[in-house]
Amino acid sequence: MKVRMHGVVHEMKTVWLEGDSLRMIDQRFLPEGIRILSAGTVGEVARAIENMAVRGAPAIGATAAYGMAVAQLAKEDIEKANQRLQRTRPTGRDLFHALEVMMDAWRAGEDLVATSRKYAAELEKSCIAIGRHGSDLLKDGSRILTHCNAGALATVDHGTALAPIRHARSNGKKLFVYVSETRPRLQGAQLTAWELSQEDIEHVIVADSASGTLMVQGFIDIVIVGADRIAANGDTANKIGTYEKAVLAKENRVPFYVAAPTNTIDFAMRSGKDVPIEERDEEEVLNIRGVRIAPKESRALNPAFDVTPAKYISGFITEKGILQSKMLRSLKPKTR
Amino acid sequence: MKVRMHGVVHEMKTVWLEGDSLRMIDQRFLPEGIRILSAGTVGEVARAIENMAVRGAPAIGATAAYGMAVAQLAKEDIEKANQRLQRTRPTGRDLFHALEVMMDAWRAGEDLVATSRKYAAELEKSCIAIGRHGSDLLKDGSRILTHCNAGALATVDHGTALAPIRHARSNGKKLFVYVSETRPRLQGAQLTAWELSQEDIEHVIVADSASGTLMVQGFIDIVIVGADRIAANGDTANKIGTYEKAVLAKENRVPFYVAAPTNTIDFAMRSGKDVPIEERDEEEVLNIRGVRIAPKESRALNPAFDVTPAKYISGFITEKGILQSKMLRSLKPKTR
Repeated sequence: MKVRMHGVVHEMKTVWLEGDSLRMIDQRFLPEGIRILSAGTVGEVARAIENMAVRGAPAIGATAAYGMAVAQLAKEDIEKANQRLQRTRPTGRDLFHALEVMMDAWRAGEDLVATSRKYAAELEKSCIAIGRHGSDLLKDGSRILTHCNAGALATVDHGTALAPIRHARSNGKKLFVYVSETRPRLQGAQLTAWELSQEDIEHVIVADSASGTLMVQGFIDIVIVGADRIAANGDTANKIGTYEKAVLAKENRVPFYVAAPTNTIDFAMRSGKDVPIEERDEEEVLNIRGVRIAPKESRALNPAFDVTPAKYISGFITEKGILQSKMLRSLKPKTR
Repeated sequence: MKVRMHGVVHEMKTVWLEGDSLRMIDQRFLPEGIRILSAGTVGEVARAIENMAVRGAPAIGATAAYGMAVAQLAKEDIEKANQRLQRTRPTGRDLFHALEVMMDAWRAGEDLVATSRKYAAELEKSCIAIGRHGSDLLKDGSRILTHCNAGALATVDHGTALAPIRHARSNGKKLFVYVSETRPRLQGAQLTAWELSQEDIEHVIVADSASGTLMVQGFIDIVIVGADRIAANGDTANKIGTYEKAVLAKENRVPFYVAAPTNTIDFAMRSGKDVPIEERDEEEVLNIRGVRIAPKESRALNPAFDVTPAKYISGFITEKGILQSKMLRSLKPKTR
């Protein structure tokens, strides 16, 4: 991804292995500045996932894969490293997929550094393919609504929901992106708007509540979001508010697409009802950037994700093409 | 309304006339503290409406009525006072209704102080009646979702959407309120949660995006919101996000009610398409409590209201009872 620092454009990844330690853009400090977080133990990697220095299901997967490489390099107990990383965040599928891949490699006696690099490289390739397939849905002048951040920062590079936008833009299509700010953690306003600014893609931030009226007024041609976990029937867990946007899109006949690598599909879950939804600290709602916004007596409820039933989803933009929910089961690996 | 200060419960109004000047709770400083704003000229009253020291359509109506009394007391030009107050905010109906009432009184040679007090007293009576009628919709144990602040602070006392909750509660029903925080200005988190805290009514604040999943999970028995302007066909302009909640309520078979005095109905507007929607400063989205949350290059769009078509509204809780949208036209005054 492009990162502008002091007037110079750098090419950066969200997370990478450097020597014995894992490096990542610390997303808690965006958009104010670029700080690089270094993690040299599994505990440090796990905490970076928990405190959301790195977030976004595919990025968490890559971070966990690299975390297992860090475990090998630091000569930590591999089984314990796997267990520690599994406990970080419950909803996204990629974390568990990445750890399965790494544990299989370990049992097969493979080098975890090489395996983790391969995992990240394959994720990048998937994101590029998602961009290529998804860009067919975008015309010159298309106005896209996206929610949360499913960009380069949520992957290793390129993004999922933002990949088609990057690809179409680099092919000369002029686009306009409506970014819903995504309370409570403001990933839309802080991360997606930042990425679009870096790439010089026209956009505007809106309150989460404004999407509906924008659709009624005909301002939105297509909605594209990412996914944390897709059940076998196509029901999709993603950032809180995704379900609302899907219902509103259907009501207003706006196409609604989920962009995700096929690793996000959890064939063991028959429907979205089975997906564990992370409940995060109420302080994320009651405070914004350290400022209390609510009465001291008031409490908050903070479900971090919701489930969008497959019937609201026009299609899934994957590295294997654009698929309907009924086609997802055909991707189920024969073995395992 | 109840206001707790230093452990003592006071009874206060949102706005009142005291001597030659208008007093109001300055809502920009809630929930941190109670500051009373004093306005002794029409210009000061108009600015208090514009900068949202006072907000909520019925409260703005009462403030404008009192503002005309201030004009009389300060010997200002009455016609100019009317024009100045008309320019403050475009969407709510009550402002224009109140100014019509005051100008009629002035032309009839009536005392504007007495007329403004009567206007505010009648609004209070309407809110009490709304509370009585609306409480029939609430059972012991009901869980209500409300959006923005349609409480005592949005009226003179008692509220519109919160009036049925106050009434049911004072009749011994145990209730639970889900308060959507209402970005960008956070009237839910800052004002509604404050009012409910003062009244000791159980509640929890949620991000605006969380309403849908709460409905899917069966946590919401009824949605009650206020209204800024109701068209003759029942289409209702209210705080941005109201439309989204109405669509989600219909999708999940949750009753959706609008609580408002019948003054809010604008019989000159055939449908919601005619209602002027205020576009407010983008800084309200880009900053929260003075802290910039977005990249410096990013812009925002800030529509303050949206329109909920009548088909999503289960009924209107008014001082004349609970009405269906088709019954609204029967309330049209014969004269004027």
